[in-house]
Amino acid sequence: ALSTLDKQPVSVAGAGRTDAGVHALGQVASFSLARDIDVDTVRRALNAHLPPSVRVVDVAVVDSRFHARFSSVSKIYRYRIWNAEVLNPFERPYVWHIPSPRLDCAAMDDAAQQLVGTHEFSSFQSAGATTSTAERTLYSSLVWCGEVDLSRSSAGPTSVPLLTYEVHGTGFLKHMVRSIVGTLVEVGRGRRTPASMLDVLQKRSRACAGETAPAAGLFLVSVSYESPDL
Amino acid sequence: ALSTLDKQPVSVAGAGRTDAGVHALGQVASFSLARDIDVDTVRRALNAHLPPSVRVVDVAVVDSRFHARFSSVSKIYRYRIWNAEVLNPFERPYVWHIPSPRLDCAAMDDAAQQLVGTHEFSSFQSAGATTSTAERTLYSSLVWCGEVDLSRSSAGPTSVPLLTYEVHGTGFLKHMVRSIVGTLVEVGRGRRTPASMLDVLQKRSRACAGETAPAAGLFLVSVSYESPDL
Repeated sequence: ALSTLDKQPVSVAGAGRTDAGVHALGQVASFSLARDIDVDTVRRALNAHLPPSVRVVDVAVVDSRFHARFSSVSKIYRYRIWNAEVLNPFERPYVWHIPSPRLDCAAMDDAAQQLVGTHEFSSFQSAGATTSTAERTLYSSLVWCGEVDLSRSSAGPTSVPLLTYEVHGTGFLKHMVRSIVGTLVEVGRGRRTPASMLDVLQKRSRACAGETAPAAGLFLVSVSYESPDL
Repeated sequence: ALSTLDKQPVSVAGAGRTDAGVHALGQVASFSLARDIDVDTVRRALNAHLPPSVRVVDVAVVDSRFHARFSSVSKIYRYRIWNAEVLNPFERPYVWHIPSPRLDCAAMDDAAQQLVGTHEFSSFQSAGATTSTAERTLYSSLVWCGEVDLSRSSAGPTSVPLLTYEVHGTGFLKHMVRSIVGTLVEVGRGRRTPASMLDVLQKRSRACAGETAPAAGLFLVSVSYESPDL
């Protein structure tokens, strides 16, 4: 869409990967245009050319040193689990459906919080990843249960059988959030203790973590940039 | 799915029509089975046979005189309009997208409330409808603006550019809710006054109402039954 607009090839840098089936609420992309086009026109033209499943919410002029990925200082990802026998059809593309058992949400939250801080996350990195270092810092990592659904439910707000994992960190390795979630679910099933999360980190082996959770439940929520860098 | 379960043809009565593209949160259906199967088994077997876009939430034994449609005493429908230039891709199948102008929500609510009471609704009935009488009673009919979205948005609850029409009535004619919404939108655009809704009713002519709003924004929210009838 940008190349059409600029009438020449434009390369686009996205802030972060979203694998097939993963959703993004606040993806950021940077690019340079040869033509002088105002930001409102860029936004409208992109939305006219992009499929409706991708919408540009805002366009802004930034310093030429700005790069959507390298200038980012932190990201927030969210993962949603539907933990009840009957899956709401409206939620189907947006959750991991675990019909049973009832997951131990408090234990999962305890386990999630073990990961806060600066660690080597190679145990939660997919094979084939090419990143030079697996050290990352998580500022927060927590699980909460139940969610008030005001959007399409009947009369009043109702509580829905959702578990949400939200993580805020400096950066994320390939499949890192999904591998963490797969491991947290094993804690929720009572197959691991919350404290075992630190053992998994120390082993630095993908084999020690749980399975990679399905893509559908994952959302890139937002990307942060330090103002002085812009 | 019921016929498979009962090993013979089973006829199913639904509480209300939902045209193609319309959603249902609380549809009700009644049927009789020849075989003696407990309700939990019926629910599980139906969900195993139905496509995942249709889920049976509950199954209950009722009096043999119960009929999902004829025993119903009232229904609630909801219609959602996205009133901003950029449509959230996640909402695309669930709203009518009206990018501009900014609709006058207060005028639409005023117009909607004019319809409360018992009226001949033939002006809001599609051609080709076969119902003998167009008299219906609306217990409530209102429009509200903005909706708190807690479900997939970033950190805190955010207000989204939604207008919601909700109507509770004894029954609804073919395309009645969508025709009402089409007319309310003309009020929201300033092309009709709220008071003109009563004129439309009195004319008893489909030509006097607004266009039929698209199916995607409509939800059958719930169906009510009087306890003594069950």
